[in-house]
Amino acid sequence: MSIRLGYIGLGIMGGPMVDRLLEAGHDVLVWNRSREKILPALDKGAKEAASVAELVSNVDVVLMCLTDSKAVEIVVFGEGGVASVGSKDKLLVDFSSMRPDVTRELAARLKSETGMGWVDAPVSGGAKGAVAGTLAIMAGGAEADIERVRPIVEAFSQRFTRMGESGAGQVTKLCNQIIVASNVVTMAEAVSFAEKSGVVDATKLAEALKGGWADSQPFQIMAPRFAARNTEPKIGAANTMLKDLDTARDVALENGAPVPMAALASEAFRKLSSMGLGEEDIGEIMALFDPRDEEG
Amino acid sequence: MSIRLGYIGLGIMGGPMVDRLLEAGHDVLVWNRSREKILPALDKGAKEAASVAELVSNVDVVLMCLTDSKAVEIVVFGEGGVASVGSKDKLLVDFSSMRPDVTRELAARLKSETGMGWVDAPVSGGAKGAVAGTLAIMAGGAEADIERVRPIVEAFSQRFTRMGESGAGQVTKLCNQIIVASNVVTMAEAVSFAEKSGVVDATKLAEALKGGWADSQPFQIMAPRFAARNTEPKIGAANTMLKDLDTARDVALENGAPVPMAALASEAFRKLSSMGLGEEDIGEIMALFDPRDEEG
Repeated sequence: MSIRLGYIGLGIMGGPMVDRLLEAGHDVLVWNRSREKILPALDKGAKEAASVAELVSNVDVVLMCLTDSKAVEIVVFGEGGVASVGSKDKLLVDFSSMRPDVTRELAARLKSETGMGWVDAPVSGGAKGAVAGTLAIMAGGAEADIERVRPIVEAFSQRFTRMGESGAGQVTKLCNQIIVASNVVTMAEAVSFAEKSGVVDATKLAEALKGGWADSQPFQIMAPRFAARNTEPKIGAANTMLKDLDTARDVALENGAPVPMAALASEAFRKLSSMGLGEEDIGEIMALFDPRDEEG
Repeated sequence: MSIRLGYIGLGIMGGPMVDRLLEAGHDVLVWNRSREKILPALDKGAKEAASVAELVSNVDVVLMCLTDSKAVEIVVFGEGGVASVGSKDKLLVDFSSMRPDVTRELAARLKSETGMGWVDAPVSGGAKGAVAGTLAIMAGGAEADIERVRPIVEAFSQRFTRMGESGAGQVTKLCNQIIVASNVVTMAEAVSFAEKSGVVDATKLAEALKGGWADSQPFQIMAPRFAARNTEPKIGAANTMLKDLDTARDVALENGAPVPMAALASEAFRKLSSMGLGEEDIGEIMALFDPRDEEG
């Protein structure tokens, strides 16, 4: 008997993930707080659940991607939520990003109230990765649970890695954010340093260092953007990055892990936020080193 | 008439570069302070010059890769050095890494004393890149000089980018070091953070985040090394990285460029040095976050 699937939260990430599941031949029961978001999926063959409880009652595995832990808590433990009909043979896979400790609390509570398992599985790769089905997913939870959903997740993910028990997926996502944020700040300072020190056209940096140890996807995208003082492409809001970095610092503090580079990067993003640019893209970090419309 | 070539300094980098030139069909006149280093090249068809002056007298373009600016100054301005027989139709291409301001001084002095041009062309890619002929070379100097030697340099380089006037190649190499060093420190702290926060096997980080925004060549190599508390592979001495970072900070200070991430990374490497580990590999930076033989 095939696994019956439900998906809650058909937003920028969840929508394309459902599309990939349907393309892979899965039956998917869907629910979203604002109903219009499920209409494209219904056109493609998804079935509608009238409520979260109805969805959970009729499936074996509940997939979910929501904005934040607040939304997750409401959907799982609110009236008529996942917990109201959960049972030990069902499994929740949560692709939302949130604090590892909050994930652990929610997962433990669902387990104790219903016996239902919880896999935290935050994703990397953005909307583009969801559409292409190439998401990297970092999972925390029981090994059996993770292996049970692996064939399903492969519909939209090229990498689904178990990192440890509950919360370990969220920790890994924070690692990702630490590295990306620190690198983005470093690249902005490197571009500014180059310009002020005699490199005439810093847009050439990405080409000059391509394929070497300084290179990375963000370097190829952000270094030319910084050098040209462009505002494209947009990656994500600076305040979202700041929130992730502050979460990482909190978690690091609780666990006695020194994170000096992440701490400094977070202060750079906090300065950006204090300049009124927090809702702008992370690429605006260049404003700390060399504002647009100013000679380098 | 083809360009007559000379190469001074057949060390770890220069040796393989000469091999690639010979393979590409160039005649190469060679000289090295300790003669035994030129013997393999002579076997492959290089011709020996009895002195620097004899080499420079008989070629149009002098290629050079030496340890540091001290060695460069001796070979160029010492008795019987490059400057003693230089002339305005000859060109020096220096692959050595050194301070941009020192490069500019030496280049200006050679120009004023002899009319001979100087291209600073520090390389990235290491001995492996030299052997494979895939070095990335960041050049500073006159455009005509750089274009003149481009067909020659292509024998061992897949990327030869003019970054500006004299010294701009050295500045770009420092940019490379800023990004690599900051990223290496960040990766060590991220691995330690992961381990202390619930990731059971941090050697999986490289695999889990592969292909994403946190990924890079150093991430694939260093993250598993950090997680496994390995001492391999060796990349280069921590004190060399520290010297480059301190040079970058000096140059940044002179030019009014804030480099907070590089400054913090340099203090991490200084701490490593103060622990007596400066001559060890840069990968020992993990000792700051989680010493080997200690539980995470």
